[in-house]
Amino acid sequence: MTMKRVLMSVAYDGTAYSGWQVQNGQRTIEGELNKALSTLTGEDIAVIGASRTDAGVHGLANMAVFDTESTIPADRFSFALKTVLPEDILVNWSKEVASDFHPRHMLTEKTYEYHIYNDELMPPTKRLYAYHEARKLDVKAMNDGAKHLIGEHDFKSFCAAGSSAETTVRNVTDVHVCTEGNEVVISVSGNGFLYNMVRIISGTLLRVGLGNFTPDDVKKVLEGKDRQLAGPTLPAKGLILKDFKFLE
Amino acid sequence: MTMKRVLMSVAYDGTAYSGWQVQNGQRTIEGELNKALSTLTGEDIAVIGASRTDAGVHGLANMAVFDTESTIPADRFSFALKTVLPEDILVNWSKEVASDFHPRHMLTEKTYEYHIYNDELMPPTKRLYAYHEARKLDVKAMNDGAKHLIGEHDFKSFCAAGSSAETTVRNVTDVHVCTEGNEVVISVSGNGFLYNMVRIISGTLLRVGLGNFTPDDVKKVLEGKDRQLAGPTLPAKGLILKDFKFLE
Repeated sequence: MTMKRVLMSVAYDGTAYSGWQVQNGQRTIEGELNKALSTLTGEDIAVIGASRTDAGVHGLANMAVFDTESTIPADRFSFALKTVLPEDILVNWSKEVASDFHPRHMLTEKTYEYHIYNDELMPPTKRLYAYHEARKLDVKAMNDGAKHLIGEHDFKSFCAAGSSAETTVRNVTDVHVCTEGNEVVISVSGNGFLYNMVRIISGTLLRVGLGNFTPDDVKKVLEGKDRQLAGPTLPAKGLILKDFKFLE
Repeated sequence: MTMKRVLMSVAYDGTAYSGWQVQNGQRTIEGELNKALSTLTGEDIAVIGASRTDAGVHGLANMAVFDTESTIPADRFSFALKTVLPEDILVNWSKEVASDFHPRHMLTEKTYEYHIYNDELMPPTKRLYAYHEARKLDVKAMNDGAKHLIGEHDFKSFCAAGSSAETTVRNVTDVHVCTEGNEVVISVSGNGFLYNMVRIISGTLLRVGLGNFTPDDVKKVLEGKDRQLAGPTLPAKGLILKDFKFLE
């Protein structure tokens, strides 16, 4: 038997899960993938995920690898998994990669979106996928504020207290805000993110959109390097890992 | 105590419900409204709904009335209900109406939308709100076919077998098809609909979009007055009662 390493792109509705990472007694995306792959192969499979998204956060394009001696061709795993995974997890595609390919040791660009439903009432069909803000947001001001975040900065103000990150410097390659129907969508791209960083950026830009912060206040929050200066951590349900690129 | 009749606009995510109408032992929208209103008022409330949507069908703007002697002002019921209804049901607004106002005895215009996710893969976050069709749909052809349905016609071909409707003639005021991101949305407006009519119209226009029917075949299906000639009944989850107007 030959061992091969398989890379998968994974989409999921995070509503019913305690996040990506396996935790004792909790239902997790990683746990469901391990169970489904072990069922398919008869092996004891443990995937390595790229982004360990929090409880309630959704994914369109997370990445994971696993090793198997199965005769199932690497690119057929995405089809075979449809029959064994629950309907709220979908493997978009799968393919063979080098045996030392590790999704957390690569240079990547990830794009997260934060969805705010910006109308007087939020329909119940949107409640699991967006945060609700009834007051009209100023999207232009939000974009003006967002520009201060682009580039390599110390994002200490946008990091949840108690994080164990060695450095709070991160490279944000893009932040912009657009409208999609009744939703205001904050899009944040970067090579890596601190704990709760996108949700705190979103809470800060929400304050700009409401007129409680000026666009230039975002620069002051960034330079102050103090979590207390930033806006609130918005709820997990509005966050989705939208895109994931390996840059090398 | 004075009795008053209150009209409500009701939105819901139909996923967890066996449809609108109260049925023994089943969870229904009507049942949840009755329970919540009885809790609020201390009375034994039974609402009268306008559209008895099927299991899994969603609503943005269904209508219902109820009678109460409660001192809660009619227009405050929508707020008071937020604290007692489950989070997948939302009363958009409430107001007092005449004591003989009956939502099923009025001239109305209802608009239903049928959502088809038209891309190779459907993200799990959309799975409860759209039907998935991976093959590219021809939206122009669908619109050309849709035009044959506008007006007063005998829609017998678009009525589920076993329906007890006295007449199968209905007045469809508009049908059109548009794209919203990756979705193809079929919008159907009319004064009243036969059982499964919008889902059968959608299944028929889907066949046009796939090239299995020509746009003119829709006219032949209509004129044939035979359910066997039309396309399939598409699944409930893609259907949403979008808009509801009283015309008198």
